[in-house]
Amino acid sequence: MTGNPTAAMLVIGDEILSGRTRDSNMHYLAGELTRHNIPLAEARFIPDEAATITAAVRTLSEAHDYVFTSGGIGPTHDDITADAVAAAFGAHIDVRDDARAILAAHYANRGTEMNEARLRMARIPDGATLIDNPVSAAPGFVLGNVHVMAGVPSVFQAMVASVMPTLSGGAPLLSQSVTLYMPEGEIAGPLRRLAEEFPELSMGSYPFQRDGAFGAQIVVRGTDGPKIDAAMARLGEVLPPVAP
Amino acid sequence: MTGNPTAAMLVIGDEILSGRTRDSNMHYLAGELTRHNIPLAEARFIPDEAATITAAVRTLSEAHDYVFTSGGIGPTHDDITADAVAAAFGAHIDVRDDARAILAAHYANRGTEMNEARLRMARIPDGATLIDNPVSAAPGFVLGNVHVMAGVPSVFQAMVASVMPTLSGGAPLLSQSVTLYMPEGEIAGPLRRLAEEFPELSMGSYPFQRDGAFGAQIVVRGTDGPKIDAAMARLGEVLPPVAP
Repeated sequence: MTGNPTAAMLVIGDEILSGRTRDSNMHYLAGELTRHNIPLAEARFIPDEAATITAAVRTLSEAHDYVFTSGGIGPTHDDITADAVAAAFGAHIDVRDDARAILAAHYANRGTEMNEARLRMARIPDGATLIDNPVSAAPGFVLGNVHVMAGVPSVFQAMVASVMPTLSGGAPLLSQSVTLYMPEGEIAGPLRRLAEEFPELSMGSYPFQRDGAFGAQIVVRGTDGPKIDAAMARLGEVLPPVAP
Repeated sequence: MTGNPTAAMLVIGDEILSGRTRDSNMHYLAGELTRHNIPLAEARFIPDEAATITAAVRTLSEAHDYVFTSGGIGPTHDDITADAVAAAFGAHIDVRDDARAILAAHYANRGTEMNEARLRMARIPDGATLIDNPVSAAPGFVLGNVHVMAGVPSVFQAMVASVMPTLSGGAPLLSQSVTLYMPEGEIAGPLRRLAEEFPELSMGSYPFQRDGAFGAQIVVRGTDGPKIDAAMARLGEVLPPVAP
């Protein structure tokens, strides 16, 4: 509707699909992308399987302007994301001097040994740009339109902060919302007619249940601010707020 | 590895991709499926777009034994999941008498009017089985191997409870875990050798950062309990626990 660039996210990790860990990175990235006017068009959660990662990266990379991955770039044997992303682009991957230098400096600083396992985190595909990791040094990377980032939320968020200024956002997508404490079944008719009255806006109804009472949050989105103001005014007429 | 049936989840809703709402249904379902020995093999988050929903339902339905959807079955104009799922199976869909009767009884009970919008929630594809909704009456449904459920968490969870006894689980997948308060870079070498020593088990390392200290949770999974006991004993030898 807005012609904005679109993004996709790939969350990688058995621990999330098993229900052991609850992902927070997708929700965080979704909010950041929305603020940058880059709609998150889809997200996929997949296990730590090389062929699955490679196939998903290819599919999403072709379908969207930006792809972001989370998880699987640590030092252990189940961290296979970097190699799987390299394979998706047919890129050669090995320990790269620039990444090794970052890790060596970090560990020297802390008096920690740079062992073989840690060196795995310097495996970066040829042609990739490094993503700064101010939390724990081991870098992410950008290959083609794919941004490969860590799964640990504090590191993921730091990497997102490093990456955001490099992205080109679209036209600001504006929104206003109102919470209606009435059943969605009462809201639906008037809201559908309002949506027909303002075809250039999108209107969503998000039901909830709180303390046994049903209600819905109505969100009106679009790029034309005055139009959204007008729609919200009409909404107040056709569906006057009711106290909770 | 275990030959268990696999499942996929489809979370439908613009509000989740925009970051406005944080989904909790995937994490909930993942835990329930794990308890029933049905691994969640993948999850996809997609917007309220009919063609996108239909295509995703087809893909996941062919690739997995069970598919579960969340969201988009309410009374408002943006609730298009039922029609999109019907389209994926080439099934006819309209208001169905059994679903209408459930809603009529529910609204009569509460002295609420059964209007046109509410009647939309009785749109059920031909051949589908209804899923009981003890919270707000409007049923979900099962068409083929696809279980169509509500997005509101309390309703979703009630529908999952209705559905679980109808699924056939696989061999119990057992797991044991230990938290190691040491950097993953120290864990990786010994853990890789342990994984080679027990090829029939899967070993995952899930790093975290707490109060500035790094650590990882090590999870050993498999179907052979005594083997897992043996691996955990070896793990305690090669990576003795360190106090946080």
